[in-house]
Amino acid sequence: MNSSDEEAIRRVVTTWHEATAAGEIDRILPLMADDVVFLVPGGPPMRGRQQFADGLAALLKEHTIQSSGEIQELRVSGDLAYCWTALSVTVTPRQGEPKRRTGNTLTVFLKQPDGTWVLARDANMLGAPRS
Amino acid sequence: MNSSDEEAIRRVVTTWHEATAAGEIDRILPLMADDVVFLVPGGPPMRGRQQFADGLAALLKEHTIQSSGEIQELRVSGDLAYCWTALSVTVTPRQGEPKRRTGNTLTVFLKQPDGTWVLARDANMLGAPRS
Repeated sequence: MNSSDEEAIRRVVTTWHEATAAGEIDRILPLMADDVVFLVPGGPPMRGRQQFADGLAALLKEHTIQSSGEIQELRVSGDLAYCWTALSVTVTPRQGEPKRRTGNTLTVFLKQPDGTWVLARDANMLGAPRS
Repeated sequence: MNSSDEEAIRRVVTTWHEATAAGEIDRILPLMADDVVFLVPGGPPMRGRQQFADGLAALLKEHTIQSSGEIQELRVSGDLAYCWTALSVTVTPRQGEPKRRTGNTLTVFLKQPDGTWVLARDANMLGAPRS
């Protein structure tokens, strides 16, 4: 049950990783809710699609990003789903050594009125970067 | 809509804080799923009610805990809910200065077959302790 919803959410996650690696911000933005909130350790929430886009654009000017995630758990109920992922993100400056961060994320997805799923809330617990 | 579910979840949160302050572990354990997972920055997940109980019991031997949370958002769909909370936790040793940590949590609650709500997944992004 919910298999089509689960598949749709998995496609959102896969597209997110692919578009991030390709630096295609315009392909990432439709994958998240307009009022998306990213929660991170020791800092204020990052709110809204535009703040995400601006931050990512600034990072991509001087870096490339490779990310991959292993979904540990994905559960859907109605128009709400959560996903626990073991995430790995490697950020490589144009000149310099790659830095890798790994850790868990807990993500809430919402089903939109048009039936698509978007990332709505994300708790990112990646540890400190390591070369 | 869902107001009785929301009220039930808010009662779980309130009871959690009260029982923690009172050191009543037996009152906290029924508030969480047996296979509960606590995700934290820079470390492995803490899994299961028993691991939580053991960790809390060890901490309470030498400390008291005061916690409070401001629910920023709570959304229910079917048997699933998420809650974003701005949390503050103060841990005070029997002898020594209190340490306060603040930050956000993103928590998943599940409705059990008997209609009660339990905390099932928790992402804790509290920052480093401060005196």
